[in-house]
Amino acid sequence: MKAYLISIGDELLIGQTVNTNVSFIAEKLTEVQIPVVKTSVISDTADGILAELDLAGKIAELIIITGGLGPTHDDVTMKSILRFFNSEPVMNEIVLGDIKSFFEKRGKELTETNRLQALVPDVAKPIRNFKGTAPGNWIEKDGKVFVTMPGVPYEMKDMFVTTVLPWITEKVGIREHETFTKNLMTTGIAESVLFDRLGNLDELLGASTMAFLPNQYGVKLRITTRGTTQEECHNKMTEIEQKIRMVAGRYIYGINDDKLEHIIGKLLIERDLTLSIAESCTGGLISHRITNVPGSSNFFERSVVSYSNGAKVEFLRVNEDFLHNYGAVSFEVARQMAEGIRAVSMTDIGLSVTGIMGPGGGTVNKPVGLVYIGICDDKVCTAKEFRFGEERILNKERTSQAALDMLRRHLLGIPYDE
Amino acid sequence: MKAYLISIGDELLIGQTVNTNVSFIAEKLTEVQIPVVKTSVISDTADGILAELDLAGKIAELIIITGGLGPTHDDVTMKSILRFFNSEPVMNEIVLGDIKSFFEKRGKELTETNRLQALVPDVAKPIRNFKGTAPGNWIEKDGKVFVTMPGVPYEMKDMFVTTVLPWITEKVGIREHETFTKNLMTTGIAESVLFDRLGNLDELLGASTMAFLPNQYGVKLRITTRGTTQEECHNKMTEIEQKIRMVAGRYIYGINDDKLEHIIGKLLIERDLTLSIAESCTGGLISHRITNVPGSSNFFERSVVSYSNGAKVEFLRVNEDFLHNYGAVSFEVARQMAEGIRAVSMTDIGLSVTGIMGPGGGTVNKPVGLVYIGICDDKVCTAKEFRFGEERILNKERTSQAALDMLRRHLLGIPYDE
Repeated sequence: MKAYLISIGDELLIGQTVNTNVSFIAEKLTEVQIPVVKTSVISDTADGILAELDLAGKIAELIIITGGLGPTHDDVTMKSILRFFNSEPVMNEIVLGDIKSFFEKRGKELTETNRLQALVPDVAKPIRNFKGTAPGNWIEKDGKVFVTMPGVPYEMKDMFVTTVLPWITEKVGIREHETFTKNLMTTGIAESVLFDRLGNLDELLGASTMAFLPNQYGVKLRITTRGTTQEECHNKMTEIEQKIRMVAGRYIYGINDDKLEHIIGKLLIERDLTLSIAESCTGGLISHRITNVPGSSNFFERSVVSYSNGAKVEFLRVNEDFLHNYGAVSFEVARQMAEGIRAVSMTDIGLSVTGIMGPGGGTVNKPVGLVYIGICDDKVCTAKEFRFGEERILNKERTSQAALDMLRRHLLGIPYDE
Repeated sequence: MKAYLISIGDELLIGQTVNTNVSFIAEKLTEVQIPVVKTSVISDTADGILAELDLAGKIAELIIITGGLGPTHDDVTMKSILRFFNSEPVMNEIVLGDIKSFFEKRGKELTETNRLQALVPDVAKPIRNFKGTAPGNWIEKDGKVFVTMPGVPYEMKDMFVTTVLPWITEKVGIREHETFTKNLMTTGIAESVLFDRLGNLDELLGASTMAFLPNQYGVKLRITTRGTTQEECHNKMTEIEQKIRMVAGRYIYGINDDKLEHIIGKLLIERDLTLSIAESCTGGLISHRITNVPGSSNFFERSVVSYSNGAKVEFLRVNEDFLHNYGAVSFEVARQMAEGIRAVSMTDIGLSVTGIMGPGGGTVNKPVGLVYIGICDDKVCTAKEFRFGEERILNKERTSQAALDMLRRHLLGIPYDE
């Protein structure tokens, strides 16, 4: 079974919306060994939708359509679906019940517009929407499966995981496993340096493949092994992974889609350690990432976003002379910030950042992109200099990643400076 | 001139990467009145690339290809481009100079892998990359323009804005303006409620069109007017916008792609007011958003992420009895947090949030999604209750938006409760 993903909506073609739906669905299908052969975005017109459904049905057996279903007026999709399958809309009582309870829970009244969303094509099995009001549809025709879902990401995602994916795997049955894919998540090493460090890739990989996927948080290595049994695939993977870890192990913070903040959370909980943070240039991003981890209140005590010098002195006990002599963006102040937040919060570890994110604020000696990250516990109290780029938001993201990685290395006893 | 956007890369088909490039390019092309008729994502194989280039050339005059160019080994794209245009690679000295200076600036050594990136097809005009190492290509053939760019978003974006877009507009020349598009950014009102409030849309819009684009930050109304002159388009837009503002004006915080934090920044600077923030459940996200605004150090003084009760008492002067009697998530504590952060920071305004983001921590009386937002200045000191959903990250995002919107309404004298 091959899959073709169609996204409908002018908002995607005029660039008003980023298409996160396609990446989500593609990832889930890849996990169950269903290859996505193509994805497309088309306009919200009946002719366009009909032509694309026809085209997709010729090259794939699973066609998933997202977008174009919603409570407002610009819904050409439903009419096109009805026409493509020669179908009539019928009121579905289960869906209507879902919509009613959705509004009841929120203490709001059901509008007529929402009631009409319970109309489902008569050839379709409706897909219930537990996060919103528009249902999806599962339609089988000539041995092919067509799935429609609304375009709102969190509704679509829930629907896909709760209902669509189980129905797909049930339909496909158990498949022979012949490939295995794993990601190694690295940070703190440039793509080209990592590439050179890995040496001869043909030798490393043999018949397996690897992609370098860089972004501001690091380089993801996506490895795919092939074999006649799942065990063979796993053994090949183990061998490749071990070789990579030999030469670049300290840069690898996780696998698959691990986020660094979740790794940090696990490490702190395992070691029963608490954390406080003093952020200047990242403005709260590090704390935001740490508190994205469910249960982070077990190890995260507090943080201070000390944008002003006053906050650094009053809350973090930074020495005023230091601020005056070395400047707010300096090794000494970073170290004092980490020491100060640790002391006032009475946590095991204090982490700090201070830097110049741009576009303004840079000087010849302290250019935009200069960052100091400090870390203190009961034994060590130090800081490290970093130099990032010129884009404010990217600089914040990179700095947050570098700070979390410095903390990871600290917890694992890996030197910061290599 | 119609455009067809092709993204190349298995990482997109297996969902490892979200395709932000397409939305970026589509938006920029739409602004200069070049319609994007279709976008596709295809695999990193020579046959697939050649077939798609062929198909795209049949239905569009501007074909933009992103991805597949990078310093590592999985670059089938360049070979396919060379084959499609019967072209040979030649070393380009300007590009080589760019690559050398890129490495020099970072104090790193040029690797052979990077040097080879200065090879450009002999039929192409190279597009310089000021943010990375891989150049792009501009190739004209049979009256059509083919553009290739690397897939790394911040490199591609800079390249597109700096070079590609100017070359495109120069090639197209001055066009008759016949459409005008504007977004009204709303928050604090559900899509269906907004829809009902706007009444008869045919009457409101006439021959113009409008799309409702909801996400966790609010509903964007995208309005497109048509006419024979640009003035006519603008007049129609003004008329529609005025009618919408009559019935929903207080929910509109900006236009086009305004972000609420930038609107807040402008309002605070205009009024010469300073801000401090006490965040509990949002964990730093509000401060992160505020400090995404360049120059935010002019109005943002500090914030405290008071995840523990200790931080609330020590840093924010919250009454321990209040914490005990009402709980950390309460109207009273939210109000005291706003009052406290304002007092210790000596700012004009204090903003606070406290709530339960989930998945854990909810009770019957205080379920997951319950949030209180507090705001204080020298005249008013109050709080407001909100109820959001069950997803931790979405709850943080919605809470941050509600808090910033409460601040916006406060600054503009719009009541919070409607």
